Amino acid sequence: MSLTFTHETLPQRVVFAAHEMRERLPAEVARLGSRPMVISTRDDVLPGAAHFREVVMHVPADVAGRARGAAAAEDVDVLVSVGGGSATGLAKAVALTTGLPIVAVPTTYAGSEATDVWGMTENGHKTTGSDRRVLPRTVVYDPSLTLTLPVDLSVASGLNALAHCVDSMWAPRADPINQALAVEGVRALSGGLPAIVRQPQDLHGRELTLYGAHLAAVAFASAGSGLHHKICHVLGGMFGLPHAQTHAVVLPYVMELNARGVPDRLADAFGPGGLARLRAEVGAPRALRDHGFREQDIPAAVEAILPVVPAGNPVPVTAGNLTALLRRAWAGEEPR
Amino acid sequence: MSLTFTHETLPQRVVFAAHEMRERLPAEVARLGSRPMVISTRDDVLPGAAHFREVVMHVPADVAGRARGAAAAEDVDVLVSVGGGSATGLAKAVALTTGLPIVAVPTTYAGSEATDVWGMTENGHKTTGSDRRVLPRTVVYDPSLTLTLPVDLSVASGLNALAHCVDSMWAPRADPINQALAVEGVRALSGGLPAIVRQPQDLHGRELTLYGAHLAAVAFASAGSGLHHKICHVLGGMFGLPHAQTHAVVLPYVMELNARGVPDRLADAFGPGGLARLRAEVGAPRALRDHGFREQDIPAAVEAILPVVPAGNPVPVTAGNLTALLRRAWAGEEPR
Repeated sequence: MSLTFTHETLPQRVVFAAHEMRERLPAEVARLGSRPMVISTRDDVLPGAAHFREVVMHVPADVAGRARGAAAAEDVDVLVSVGGGSATGLAKAVALTTGLPIVAVPTTYAGSEATDVWGMTENGHKTTGSDRRVLPRTVVYDPSLTLTLPVDLSVASGLNALAHCVDSMWAPRADPINQALAVEGVRALSGGLPAIVRQPQDLHGRELTLYGAHLAAVAFASAGSGLHHKICHVLGGMFGLPHAQTHAVVLPYVMELNARGVPDRLADAFGPGGLARLRAEVGAPRALRDHGFREQDIPAAVEAILPVVPAGNPVPVTAGNLTALLRRAWAGEEPR
Repeated sequence: MSLTFTHETLPQRVVFAAHEMRERLPAEVARLGSRPMVISTRDDVLPGAAHFREVVMHVPADVAGRARGAAAAEDVDVLVSVGGGSATGLAKAVALTTGLPIVAVPTTYAGSEATDVWGMTENGHKTTGSDRRVLPRTVVYDPSLTLTLPVDLSVASGLNALAHCVDSMWAPRADPINQALAVEGVRALSGGLPAIVRQPQDLHGRELTLYGAHLAAVAFASAGSGLHHKICHVLGGMFGLPHAQTHAVVLPYVMELNARGVPDRLADAFGPGGLARLRAEVGAPRALRDHGFREQDIPAAVEAILPVVPAGNPVPVTAGNLTALLRRAWAGEEPR
């Protein structure tokens, strides 16, 4: 084994403090500017600041245009997003053309605040890209803001983060550094998600999950998209399978296939019982047949997935083992 | 337990590739500038570049002044340091006043290339500080350059890096992120150092150690100086004890004291046999009495250390347990 890799660490300041968002935010904003604009549907986040309230899913280009206009009209010098992926995404769209720094306050486990990836929608078409200017300079994580996120959404979002961590282990730009962060993310999410299910108002479960979601985003943005995401992307696109359920079902079978590419410490990070225990505790969906995938779709899926398998996957992917994987995921057989 | 922390991730590009320094360096330099100056005692690193050869230990201010003058005279726009801590340190001294970006090529396990800490000496007095401008933008790690580093120096330097990792676990700014990096550093160093001792020309041992040294520097710069470094600093300053030996002897006793502050995954990272196995395999020094520390020095050392114990140490440090620690380290008793 030889250690050969290129790892790019992106700069970010992370403030992690439950119940302290309103207390911490003014000082964090003041580090970057003096004329903030809040992008959020919430009021009273930062008294006295300009406020852009029109936050819409998928960042429509016309909304981004209006937000940029508002930032210019108010002579804003720092953006403050408070909300889920849509609020963060809109701030990124403004930063993309203006270079304004962002302080992000995420209220979900989506992770966009920790990446330099942006997206925008126009005429039903989504454009995405990555640009250093959109990476929030500072993130204020206040896990108490996620206490109101419903359990089912929390679990779906947390399992999505978990898939980001696991897929980072063998993704095209996987390296020991992003793997170490991914392993730490698995550890946090494995502890946090069951705690949320047991007791949704338990702050520590929320803290662990939000911390894990941060690491998942950092690791995945650095390592790129591995086999798991390629499979799920095809299943979603060709057969319209639901995003969260597809990810939750497929992950253990990809781990099974790539078992010899999985370092021991990934297994350790899941703790006793591994991913199986975690899935049982959070009631994760178990079979693609329950979510619209049909057995007869398997050959077409295999044909579409094979050409997009990442070159560096630790196990050669063949029509044979991919068919077996999809059949097991379709039926919901017990993963090994 | 509550997750409350502020973590500042500093930006750096890391290229890790054995035997590829000469091949990779031109492209990495070209990303940052077109008029490089090499700071190194080595020739032929980057053909055609300006070259400053006067590399001296501890970065004397007059040498730094001449290096700055050379950079200005040659209208340099990027610095390339190739060497140990002295070459990196000199490049940092130039960057401190000029803002020039640095590409660092370290040839030892000292780790300075991964931190924003600079130091300079004038009239026998050393000034240090930290400044974002001195953090090398890019590091090219070529572990084959360390194959000629003698085994004893490699071990001393590697154990020093190990102490940085371990002390990061409970240092004043310790947080889960720098702890995860420190744990990964322990894992790498625990594998790498014995491999170097067994076979100094084994590239993989060199790779692991250099990778571990990188993580140690990142983690320690982020977390700050913990109990171990406070103790060693006092012992070195008051009693003139040798740096490397003092660190190597004291570390297991600090781990013993702070045992309940040590996450399981730190123990896991050392692998079977833990730090004791590692120390035996590399022939680490065992007792301070062998290195100039006298039993009667213990009370004065305790008195000097107590006021500088970091506030966040996981175990309260008292005259009693500190005396016991120093007595055990003095005698070289078997750490628990």
